[in-house]
Amino acid sequence: MQYSDPLLVGSNSGDHTKWGEVERILNMTAVRIQEMGGTVEFADVGTHQLPSGETVPLPPVILAEFERDPKKATLCIYGHVDVQPAKMADGWTTDPFNLTEIKGNLYGRGATDNKGPVLAWLHAVESYQEIPVNIKLIIEGLEEVGSYGLLELTRKRNDSFFADVDFIVISDNVWATRSPALTYGTRGSSYFFVEVDGPKLDCHSGVYGGSIQEPMSDLIALLGSLLDHTGKILVPGVTDDVAPLTEDERKLYDNISFDLEEMKSVAGVKHFLQDTKEEVLMARWRNPSLSIHGIQGAFSEPGTKTVIPKQVTGKFSIRQVPNMDPPDVERKVKEHLQQVFSTLKSPNRLRVTATVGAKPWVANLKDPQYVAGQRAVREVFGVDPELIREGSTIPIAQNFQEETGKSVMMLPIGGHDDGEHSQNEKISRYNYIEGTKLFAAYFYELSLLK
Amino acid sequence: MQYSDPLLVGSNSGDHTKWGEVERILNMTAVRIQEMGGTVEFADVGTHQLPSGETVPLPPVILAEFERDPKKATLCIYGHVDVQPAKMADGWTTDPFNLTEIKGNLYGRGATDNKGPVLAWLHAVESYQEIPVNIKLIIEGLEEVGSYGLLELTRKRNDSFFADVDFIVISDNVWATRSPALTYGTRGSSYFFVEVDGPKLDCHSGVYGGSIQEPMSDLIALLGSLLDHTGKILVPGVTDDVAPLTEDERKLYDNISFDLEEMKSVAGVKHFLQDTKEEVLMARWRNPSLSIHGIQGAFSEPGTKTVIPKQVTGKFSIRQVPNMDPPDVERKVKEHLQQVFSTLKSPNRLRVTATVGAKPWVANLKDPQYVAGQRAVREVFGVDPELIREGSTIPIAQNFQEETGKSVMMLPIGGHDDGEHSQNEKISRYNYIEGTKLFAAYFYELSLLK
Repeated sequence: MQYSDPLLVGSNSGDHTKWGEVERILNMTAVRIQEMGGTVEFADVGTHQLPSGETVPLPPVILAEFERDPKKATLCIYGHVDVQPAKMADGWTTDPFNLTEIKGNLYGRGATDNKGPVLAWLHAVESYQEIPVNIKLIIEGLEEVGSYGLLELTRKRNDSFFADVDFIVISDNVWATRSPALTYGTRGSSYFFVEVDGPKLDCHSGVYGGSIQEPMSDLIALLGSLLDHTGKILVPGVTDDVAPLTEDERKLYDNISFDLEEMKSVAGVKHFLQDTKEEVLMARWRNPSLSIHGIQGAFSEPGTKTVIPKQVTGKFSIRQVPNMDPPDVERKVKEHLQQVFSTLKSPNRLRVTATVGAKPWVANLKDPQYVAGQRAVREVFGVDPELIREGSTIPIAQNFQEETGKSVMMLPIGGHDDGEHSQNEKISRYNYIEGTKLFAAYFYELSLLK
Repeated sequence: MQYSDPLLVGSNSGDHTKWGEVERILNMTAVRIQEMGGTVEFADVGTHQLPSGETVPLPPVILAEFERDPKKATLCIYGHVDVQPAKMADGWTTDPFNLTEIKGNLYGRGATDNKGPVLAWLHAVESYQEIPVNIKLIIEGLEEVGSYGLLELTRKRNDSFFADVDFIVISDNVWATRSPALTYGTRGSSYFFVEVDGPKLDCHSGVYGGSIQEPMSDLIALLGSLLDHTGKILVPGVTDDVAPLTEDERKLYDNISFDLEEMKSVAGVKHFLQDTKEEVLMARWRNPSLSIHGIQGAFSEPGTKTVIPKQVTGKFSIRQVPNMDPPDVERKVKEHLQQVFSTLKSPNRLRVTATVGAKPWVANLKDPQYVAGQRAVREVFGVDPELIREGSTIPIAQNFQEETGKSVMMLPIGGHDDGEHSQNEKISRYNYIEGTKLFAAYFYELSLLK
C-alpha cells in the first residue's frame, strides 16, 4: 500500500540548490494549518553564507497559532519538515519519497524524522472540538543543516510570539528502547569541512604520481589525526569540559530497558566500542563523539579512475555534550588540523570551516511539563516513561531554553529502530497512532497543571 | 570550431555498464579500417569477473592488417579507443565529448589518450599510395582498466597474427618536454580496493556516534598507513626490488630539457616532492609511487549529511618499476593492510582486492627500431629525440615484449601539457599534424632497415 500524503514529498535541506522543495513543503504545511482554522505567518529569517562565500536567501519559518483563550496554558510545538538526502542507490528497498506500508510499518524519508510527528501533532489538535491548551506552532525547513536563522528569530520574537508561551515541546527524536520515553538532553554538533587544495587540475597518477604531494594523502593524514580506533577524540583539549558523571545521573541509566544484544542486531554490528549497556548509553548520550562522513572531490563512483584529485574536502562532525562549547571546540579543531598540516610540509592549501555549532542541551527533570508528560505516557501506554537523553542534535532545544527561559521538553513518539537518517527510515502504524493519542493526552494533562 | 569525428564519442571503459559505448567505438574504428582497404577481425577475449563476483563478457579486440608483401618488414601498431571518465562538473571548459578547437588546440576526452594518435596512424597509412612496410593493427577498448584479455590473446596469436611481425610500436603517451621523444620504459600499476563493511545500514551519527567503530575511521587509518608526507610508500618490502640506478642510466637524465619552473606552473604546484629536475624525473619514471584516488560509499556530494556509512571502499594504485613484481606487491599490500586492520580491533569486515597488476617495462635502446625512430624524428622535427620513460602504465608494452619476443617501441606524438586523464585534455594541431608526418616518416625509415 502506498500513501501520497503531501507532507511526505522530498525536501532535502542539505543541498541549498533544493531549497525550493523545502519552500514547497512549508507552503503545504501552512495550507493544512489554515484549513484547520489556524493563522499562519511566514517569518523571514534572512540570508545564509555558504562555505563557497556565496550568500543565499533562507526559506521562511512558519509561526502559527490556534484561537487563544487567556485562561488556558499556552503550549508551543516545534517541528521540522525538511529531511536528510535519500535515494534508491543508497540501498532503500522502497522509493524513499513515496510512503509505503509494509507489515505495519510506514517506510519513507522523514517518516519518523520529522514529518510523521508533525502530522501527528496536527491530528492531535484536530481530535479536539475544544483544545484544552492554547497551541502555537513553529515549523521550519532547515533543521537537518542546523536551523539557520531560527535562533535570531527566537530572540526577535521573545517579547511577542513567545511572550505568553508556558511550555515548549519538541518531538524530533525516538525512544531508546521498546518503551515510551521522555527526553531531557540532546548532544550538540559542529560540522567541519577540511578542504585541501593542490594542483590546478586533476592529475594523471602515472604522470605525476611520486612527484606531487597529493591533496588526498594530506587529507587522509588530517582525518586520521582526529580519533583513534577506540573512538577517542584526539584533538587536544576538546573533551576537557565534559561534565563529570554524578551519582544521581549514573542511577538514571540503570532503569533503561536497553537490550544490548537486540541493539547489536538492529545495527548489525558484532560489538560496540563499549562492553556494558550503561557504557554504551553514556557513549551515545553524555559523551562526545566524532564521525567522518565522507570526502567531496575525490573519485567516489564505482570502477577505477587513476586520478590525483586537485581539491578534496573531508567532512566530519563532533557531537558535543555539557559543558562543551561549540566555538571553543571549533577553535581547538582548527588549531589541531593546522598543527598536523604544518608537520606535512605540504605545498597545498588547507582551509577548515565549520557550520552549525549547536549547543548541547539538558533539562530540569523536576519541571511541571515533565510531570504532565509522564502522566500522559502512563495514560496511553500504561507504563512509566524511560527518562532518556538523545545522542543526536536538535539545536533549538537548548536555544529555546536559553533564549526564552521557558520550560522545554522532548516527547518522542518514534520507535528505537526507526532508522532516522538511514536507509528504510520508517515509523510504525502503532507508534504513529499511539503517538497521536499521547499528544492529545499531553494537551489534557498540561491543562490540569494550571 | 567543433568537430564531430566519430572516433571522438564517449567510451569510458572504467564503468562496465558502459561497455556498449566501447563496442560502438570499436565498430566505428573497424568500419574506417575496412574503408581504407584493411581486413578486420573482431577477436573474442572472453569474460571478466568484477570485484562484486559478477562475470561480464569483454568487448572484442580489433586485429587488422593491410595487404601483405613478404619482401617488406611488418610493423604492428597498437592503440586504444576507450577513455577515462569525464564530465563538465569536473571542471571542463568545453564539452569533453565534443572535440573543440581553441587557439590551435583540440580539446576533448581522448584527444591525446589515445583516440588522436590512433587517427594519426590511420592518416599516415592513408598518406601512402604504397605503404613501405606491412601494417598490422591491434586496437582495443579496455586499456584504461588494464587491457583485460589482451595478454591471453597475445599468447594465443603468438604463432599466427604475431608470427611475421618484426616491430611493435605504441603511441600512447606524451613527450616529457617541448621536444619530441622516444620512450623506452613505462611504470606498471596495480589498482587496489579496500572495502570495510560494518553496520547493516547507514547509521545516524547522533544516535550511534561514539558507540560504533565506524568503517570510515577504520578505512582512514588503513589508507593513512600507506605512505608518508614525503611520498614514501610505507608498505613493508614493497620497494625492496626497485632496480638500483646505474651510472649509464643516470646520465640519460642530464639530456632531458625538462624545465622545473615550467612544470610547476603547468601543474599549478608550489613545489614538487623533489628539489632537482633529475630527482623529479626519476620519481616519475624509475621509482614507484602510490596515489589514493577516492572513497566509494561515503558521503561525497556537496553540503552536509550526518551519516555513518555502513560500507566504504578506498581506492588507491601503486605505480611499479623494474624489478617490482605486481603479484608480489599485491601480496605485501594485502598483508600490510590486514596487519594494520588487526591493530584496530575492529568488529567490521575488511576485504582487499586488486585489479590490473600490469608489469613495468624497459626496452633496449640499441634495438634497430629505435634507430629508425630517431631518424624519423630528425627528419620531421630537425632535432634528436629525447630518450625518456613514461610514468604511467601501458601494460601491453611489457606484455608484448615478454610474450612475443619482438622489439617494442613507444613513439609519442602528444605534447607534455596535453593533460591526459585530466580536465581539458587536448592535443595541439601542431602535434597532431607533425605527429602524423612522424608516423609516415617512421614507416619509411623502418623500410630502409631491412
